[in-house]
Amino acid sequence: MNTPPTRIVTFGEIMLRLSTLRHQRFRQARNMEVEYGGGESNVAVSLANYGQDVRFVSRLPDNDLGECAIRSLRATGIDTTYIVRGGKRLGLYFLETGAVQRPSKVIYDREDSSLATVAPGQIDWDRAFDGATWFHWSGITPAVSASAAAVCLEACTAAAERGIRISVDLNHRSKLWQYGKSPAEVMPALVELCDVIVGGSYEAERYFGITVEDKTDFTLLARALRARFPKATEIVTTLRGSISASHNTYTALLWDGGQLHSSPTYHLTHIVDRVGGGDSFMGGLIHGLLTWPDEPSYALRFAVAASALKHTIPGDVNLVTEQEVIALMEGDGSGRVQR
Amino acid sequence: MNTPPTRIVTFGEIMLRLSTLRHQRFRQARNMEVEYGGGESNVAVSLANYGQDVRFVSRLPDNDLGECAIRSLRATGIDTTYIVRGGKRLGLYFLETGAVQRPSKVIYDREDSSLATVAPGQIDWDRAFDGATWFHWSGITPAVSASAAAVCLEACTAAAERGIRISVDLNHRSKLWQYGKSPAEVMPALVELCDVIVGGSYEAERYFGITVEDKTDFTLLARALRARFPKATEIVTTLRGSISASHNTYTALLWDGGQLHSSPTYHLTHIVDRVGGGDSFMGGLIHGLLTWPDEPSYALRFAVAASALKHTIPGDVNLVTEQEVIALMEGDGSGRVQR
Amino acid sequence: MNTPPTRIVTFGEIMLRLSTLRHQRFRQARNMEVEYGGGESNVAVSLANYGQDVRFVSRLPDNDLGECAIRSLRATGIDTTYIVRGGKRLGLYFLETGAVQRPSKVIYDREDSSLATVAPGQIDWDRAFDGATWFHWSGITPAVSASAAAVCLEACTAAAERGIRISVDLNHRSKLWQYGKSPAEVMPALVELCDVIVGGSYEAERYFGITVEDKTDFTLLARALRARFPKATEIVTTLRGSISASHNTYTALLWDGGQLHSSPTYHLTHIVDRVGGGDSFMGGLIHGLLTWPDEPSYALRFAVAASALKHTIPGDVNLVTEQEVIALMEGDGSGRVQR
Amino acid sequence: MNTPPTRIVTFGEIMLRLSTLRHQRFRQARNMEVEYGGGESNVAVSLANYGQDVRFVSRLPDNDLGECAIRSLRATGIDTTYIVRGGKRLGLYFLETGAVQRPSKVIYDREDSSLATVAPGQIDWDRAFDGATWFHWSGITPAVSASAAAVCLEACTAAAERGIRISVDLNHRSKLWQYGKSPAEVMPALVELCDVIVGGSYEAERYFGITVEDKTDFTLLARALRARFPKATEIVTTLRGSISASHNTYTALLWDGGQLHSSPTYHLTHIVDRVGGGDSFMGGLIHGLLTWPDEPSYALRFAVAASALKHTIPGDVNLVTEQEVIALMEGDGSGRVQR
Amino acid sequence: MNTPPTRIVTFGEIMLRLSTLRHQRFRQARNMEVEYGGGESNVAVSLANYGQDVRFVSRLPDNDLGECAIRSLRATGIDTTYIVRGGKRLGLYFLETGAVQRPSKVIYDREDSSLATVAPGQIDWDRAFDGATWFHWSGITPAVSASAAAVCLEACTAAAERGIRISVDLNHRSKLWQYGKSPAEVMPALVELCDVIVGGSYEAERYFGITVEDKTDFTLLARALRARFPKATEIVTTLRGSISASHNTYTALLWDGGQLHSSPTYHLTHIVDRVGGGDSFMGGLIHGLLTWPDEPSYALRFAVAASALKHTIPGDVNLVTEQEVIALMEGDGSGRVQR
Amino acid sequence: MNTPPTRIVTFGEIMLRLSTLRHQRFRQARNMEVEYGGGESNVAVSLANYGQDVRFVSRLPDNDLGECAIRSLRATGIDTTYIVRGGKRLGLYFLETGAVQRPSKVIYDREDSSLATVAPGQIDWDRAFDGATWFHWSGITPAVSASAAAVCLEACTAAAERGIRISVDLNHRSKLWQYGKSPAEVMPALVELCDVIVGGSYEAERYFGITVEDKTDFTLLARALRARFPKATEIVTTLRGSISASHNTYTALLWDGGQLHSSPTYHLTHIVDRVGGGDSFMGGLIHGLLTWPDEPSYALRFAVAASALKHTIPGDVNLVTEQEVIALMEGDGSGRVQR
Repeated sequence: MNTPPTRIVTFGEIMLRLSTLRHQRFRQARNMEVEYGGGESNVAVSLANYGQDVRFVSRLPDNDLGECAIRSLRATGIDTTYIVRGGKRLGLYFLETGAVQRPSKVIYDREDSSLATVAPGQIDWDRAFDGATWFHWSGITPAVSASAAAVCLEACTAAAERGIRISVDLNHRSKLWQYGKSPAEVMPALVELCDVIVGGSYEAERYFGITVEDKTDFTLLARALRARFPKATEIVTTLRGSISASHNTYTALLWDGGQLHSSPTYHLTHIVDRVGGGDSFMGGLIHGLLTWPDEPSYALRFAVAASALKHTIPGDVNLVTEQEVIALMEGDGSGRVQR
Repeated sequence: MNTPPTRIVTFGEIMLRLSTLRHQRFRQARNMEVEYGGGESNVAVSLANYGQDVRFVSRLPDNDLGECAIRSLRATGIDTTYIVRGGKRLGLYFLETGAVQRPSKVIYDREDSSLATVAPGQIDWDRAFDGATWFHWSGITPAVSASAAAVCLEACTAAAERGIRISVDLNHRSKLWQYGKSPAEVMPALVELCDVIVGGSYEAERYFGITVEDKTDFTLLARALRARFPKATEIVTTLRGSISASHNTYTALLWDGGQLHSSPTYHLTHIVDRVGGGDSFMGGLIHGLLTWPDEPSYALRFAVAASALKHTIPGDVNLVTEQEVIALMEGDGSGRVQR
Repeated sequence: MNTPPTRIVTFGEIMLRLSTLRHQRFRQARNMEVEYGGGESNVAVSLANYGQDVRFVSRLPDNDLGECAIRSLRATGIDTTYIVRGGKRLGLYFLETGAVQRPSKVIYDREDSSLATVAPGQIDWDRAFDGATWFHWSGITPAVSASAAAVCLEACTAAAERGIRISVDLNHRSKLWQYGKSPAEVMPALVELCDVIVGGSYEAERYFGITVEDKTDFTLLARALRARFPKATEIVTTLRGSISASHNTYTALLWDGGQLHSSPTYHLTHIVDRVGGGDSFMGGLIHGLLTWPDEPSYALRFAVAASALKHTIPGDVNLVTEQEVIALMEGDGSGRVQR
Repeated sequence: MNTPPTRIVTFGEIMLRLSTLRHQRFRQARNMEVEYGGGESNVAVSLANYGQDVRFVSRLPDNDLGECAIRSLRATGIDTTYIVRGGKRLGLYFLETGAVQRPSKVIYDREDSSLATVAPGQIDWDRAFDGATWFHWSGITPAVSASAAAVCLEACTAAAERGIRISVDLNHRSKLWQYGKSPAEVMPALVELCDVIVGGSYEAERYFGITVEDKTDFTLLARALRARFPKATEIVTTLRGSISASHNTYTALLWDGGQLHSSPTYHLTHIVDRVGGGDSFMGGLIHGLLTWPDEPSYALRFAVAASALKHTIPGDVNLVTEQEVIALMEGDGSGRVQR
Repeated sequence: MNTPPTRIVTFGEIMLRLSTLRHQRFRQARNMEVEYGGGESNVAVSLANYGQDVRFVSRLPDNDLGECAIRSLRATGIDTTYIVRGGKRLGLYFLETGAVQRPSKVIYDREDSSLATVAPGQIDWDRAFDGATWFHWSGITPAVSASAAAVCLEACTAAAERGIRISVDLNHRSKLWQYGKSPAEVMPALVELCDVIVGGSYEAERYFGITVEDKTDFTLLARALRARFPKATEIVTTLRGSISASHNTYTALLWDGGQLHSSPTYHLTHIVDRVGGGDSFMGGLIHGLLTWPDEPSYALRFAVAASALKHTIPGDVNLVTEQEVIALMEGDGSGRVQR
Repeated sequence: MNTPPTRIVTFGEIMLRLSTLRHQRFRQARNMEVEYGGGESNVAVSLANYGQDVRFVSRLPDNDLGECAIRSLRATGIDTTYIVRGGKRLGLYFLETGAVQRPSKVIYDREDSSLATVAPGQIDWDRAFDGATWFHWSGITPAVSASAAAVCLEACTAAAERGIRISVDLNHRSKLWQYGKSPAEVMPALVELCDVIVGGSYEAERYFGITVEDKTDFTLLARALRARFPKATEIVTTLRGSISASHNTYTALLWDGGQLHSSPTYHLTHIVDRVGGGDSFMGGLIHGLLTWPDEPSYALRFAVAASALKHTIPGDVNLVTEQEVIALMEGDGSGRVQR
């Protein structure tokens, strides 16, 4: 990799993840694995692993757990300078890893976290966006609290004013949005500022009231989204087939305003950890669009292959190199020992 | 769940289970996982998890290991008041977890256990059956020793006298029955008292000398068993297809004296732990027959779905709620993350 | 098993294997599993488990790690008397266990190991071959260093002079052969002395410049190898189909100078650890050829079934008995719990 | 033990405790040990282990973590029937275990927990106190929130009305009391209702403004407390000498209105886990006062010996029997292997 | 070390040891550490580590656990050829590791083990004693069962007839001796054949009815034992001071028929595992008496230093070299890092 | 902390550290703990934890293990930009953690590591020293290889030319210095350039042939070193008393050209991990001299307190804040729980 010609900023919440081991249920757990992850920080880690210059912006408590989250990011080479310290607590989530017909189960404990209580004016976007060419956020952040949504708007506005390209992963979490506003009241103003939209018919309906007649024809949905959000140049969706908790299929589609590109479908059986699968797609997509700007189809395939590899790695984040993703894209999915 | 309108008593042996980790063979094990389980206590745990009022009766040594077994039961809400303390040792079993074409391997070390040396008169069945409406036992207990078989008969007789419904899982273990009597000498007198019989052609032949021409037609076997044991109202069998240690199929049949009900077949691949699969079926069946007394077909499907979920959980016991089983029955086997 | 009528000697390197757990990538590892293994010692362990009288010859450093390697061998009953102590360090390898489409990854750190710096004359082959009837080595040892290759030749020559039967696993490792000679310069003189050759078209071409028109017809390759190495009585190859890191197929072919024997194909899905799969085949083959000398087809099937079982066991070595392999050969691959 | 002639109720918060292993600092932790504990539930566990009939009352969220907390209590035989389910989250605390000159460190994350948001009227004290003869609470509960303090007063009042004996562990935690009231505004009304007070000069000053000239003379303090709280019959204090995180001394004093009783001093070196040391003292004291009502000195010595043993056990709770405590009291602190 | 000029045979029981970790009590254990150990096999391991030629004789079940025990011995280089396979089960013991004032706790589960059911005639002492010059046994074996005691006598008689020197560790275990005979009926006939006796006033009284006026003067006891057992040339005792489970003192005395030799006293604080401390002393003593036959004082000091080191090593056996013991004897107890 | 007014550069080797757990000996280890550490990188980590701007310079292989080492540094905030990638392998060391009278044991495996094969010209000192005000190295680096010594001289010369203050920890490791030169030939030219020298009479004699009459009077040695190395303004030594592997005392002395300053002596009993104790002292000393430039005595006390805390933390590096060190300096060594 040459020195990257760009700087990417992502903004959102990073949480302490506590997960049971060996498919234990919560009530069996006598110890839990400790990691740090969250949608937008996971995207940042993917990008750092591909050699990109990445900055993660958030708000974390001024205690040892906040420090641990920062250290996990810094280890990958992410710039954490503009993470604000304050608030009372680090958001948490508990994960029970399913198998076969038993789904994984998440217990969120993120209310009143430092990020949920972030307020406009606390983050110096002028400095945080210094040198930035891409900004990424997701639908999880405005779902957390009214003030987080306000800071999200602050960030998107600041990014748009500076001509920074903006991507969003619409990512609806039904257990969030508990603060009195619906996504339909909040999301449109944010998405209007975005250049790349990743989402599906589920979010289109809930966030924007957009439905299309034939859900199997993504071009219809993409065109409808473009009509509503004319700034968007790429509209992307991923399709996960859940045969069981241990066996999924994964594919994606990208509409670039003209053409529909589709990726191959990966059969992911013997899944190790599917949490973060969408974030690893997003990280792969941003890297792909930046690295091969004229080949959206290649970028899409890169993103899907990246996500396929994530399913083989325990934890929230995708620890793969560009070279490893390309090896899979180019057909080596045989898993032969490399020695 | 409302307060359950019934009290279920199960009787049998609970053992210390020592199992190797990560598919290690015994000779690789430097530590072993510690659990407590046994056929009838596993059934009790399933029932307690569904909100039933359950009492487990047994005999355990008056040492720390006996105490540990009791604590594991009490944690689930099982009434352990009528567990008698005495005898020399807790029964043990060692488990080496197989994979692919290598079978799991069990080393029993349960001779002269407290339950094997239980004697008639030691358990106060009058008090143990106080308030009970259902009694469950299995073919393992009379296989352990002559005195355990005698206590089994004592229990069945006491239950039958009180009009308590009795279920039995015939469950033949060829390594047991070492005390000089064959199942054919012992089992008939016990099974005559039962209302619900779970077993297959294998046990029918060994225990009762019953064979049918066409083993694929369960109605034939069920009718033959009914002819011999006229008290039995439900005759049930489970069919496990073992493609490998990691991949099984599982289904079941129930003949209610008139009609044959059959469940869907589950494909259980990437199995986490199949020990206790039959006990979780039994627990689901009792709960089903009690909860939906007029829907034997629903009860059967509940039992099979419950057992499918057990295969995803490490250990002897099935840690699932009624709601989780119903979710699977109603078709959600996709294993999508619940958040 | 009766007292074995033969003594087998294997020669090569045994290394410290440090592997990540639970499919972690190297950068996630906070602890690593410690084992000791290497191609020829793995073969020796297989043979010892089948009850053979086996001696492993090597050179190990005179420190605690060398001692640990010896202890791991001695535990299985292997004679370690002729392991020479000396040199600076134990060879190491680091293993990251893959899954699904992510391959396992090996980092070798074996340069300047005690075996790599072994010199002719250091091993007393006269005594090491005392009572021996079979000698096994592999293409890994001469790939390590010029002096290891020289000692390999010393050993093969001494064995041939004594009329000891010699087997070789050609086993090409492209990351080795760094000492200035190509396999084509080294291997022919060694293989000329061998009676049993295990390898495929890949090694035939790189080592001996032998290619055949139709690679799918093993008889062609076998005949060509026989033409070049007339001493060889059995020429054998294994065929691994890598569907993913978690799912392989495995089969093998043996040409006995007249007839081509082929084994059934095993479907190995949910693989636990495929490292050492080839060595377990080799161990099974030697045991098979010694135990059923007139049934090469049975020996081949034994070897393949042995290797199938290895894929279910963590670590480098195959911990199965002859009886367990035969159970699988005879069709019981159902993985039903043995109790 | 005969059937206990009494029933003890304790009320407070039970939390999920997540602790680092092997003296790791938070930033080193890749997994954490999972337990459930809290001041008043720890007292309940001690009492259950001594064979007492104990009921723990609290409020827990209706999720898997709340369920886990209940199961941990039920395992010991504690009656959990009157634990109310509701509220948003289980309180948590993170523990980093110190050593030598490095103190252990606790991060509380208990704001807005189910217990903190408990409200008067939610707990049916009439039923919860059914059959009760002793009620125990601590100064931690009213420190958590105004509503928890209100429920504490509700409980104490209900207990006092029923003539139930009340004990309190004053237990000041400076990081709590964040809800706008000081202990001095809240505690006196609660403590007025108590019969047994455990605390020291630190709490006496902060809670009640009571200071004595000579802090080394506990009789002075005890008399001053008695003057203020005439209902109190026993006033007790513990004295911990902290030589290092690994080496403490522990002793206690009890003033029974007339006489001052003092315990021997234990030297606790090589401490395994000192969290819960005070709770184990409290549990021992209640058991002692109930079991040997005429021997306050013996009760005190029992409590101190119980606490000494707690320091040797990992986790929050004291897992010892009455017999083990008495063995230590009677002088066997030699730690000889019992076999 | 030169090739050892002697062969030592030890006879007794080796058990599966299952121990809790990190000072957990039994009821906290979710996994247990797996080891294999027993008094006489522990002595054999010590001797093998000093380079002695050692053979361990016992009876073990013909299952995987028996095999595991053998492998643990073979790893150290012990000759296991004369271990007889048969009987039903491997003896077990469960260990809860104490700390500070809490003693370690052992639950034996060794009744009806293969060794307990060994019978005279099963072991071919002729071959087992081939080449032997020293035989060691302990008071534990005749305590297990009448038949084990009979085999013990068989062994001692055979050894004495061959002029093999015999040592015994009197080692009284009060929980054994359950088979209807007292030590006083069994031990004298066995000890009469011994040359080296290790024991104290406790055993002297229980086994032989020997008491001396002044227990602090070991010469008195030694002389009394010599009077009773004139064959004994060395009479030895160890003195353990138990300050706590974590802090002991250790010293020993040897009376050689003329002179009393005493060792220095070691202060063992921060003990890691004291089980096997006596066996490591015994191993050191035999090695010392064989290696420095004219220096009983040096042999005694070697034995005590060896035992001191054992207390720092987890498990039953002492894994130290002669050189490491001598380094400590010569005064380097500083524990400075060796690099 | 304000933004630090200085930038510190350290240069040396960082290794993969593989250590046994729970005081196991090497031969017991079935898994090992993985960390990354080395003298000069440990100093860098200490300084980063105090908030200093630190850069670590080294040479690491271009493989996953090299990457892991970099990530461990980056997590703490150390600038790793000038770490050169190249060479064949990461240096390793294996650590067996001792206890009581058994010393810890280190097996180095660092020959031919990337740092050992670094060559002059490979590191761009011009850029590496950009903005630097302090440079630290130790006697370990020139002990590794002739070329590492040459690069050390290159670095010291470059630093001295730029007026950067230079500190050295003389740190003699007798197992190194294997490349044909003695310390006396190499060290003087390097130390001549240093401003702060940490070492004792042992190094003074071996490196410089300097001996003093009275080794207990550090002023004599310091004056002699100053006479030889007139640039040195602070000459410092640490004194470790090794009572056992678990119990040390620790103190230090600093001579500032005029006055001798001495620290208090810490009693470190129950030591968790003493590896890195000297490096943590060095890190504390540099931070102290930079932060309180006019108070060498305070700086020295800070360094000793920092090192005391290191002994309580597993691993190579000291994970403490300035505030925690000051709390200990100011007398709070009580280890009371902080909550």
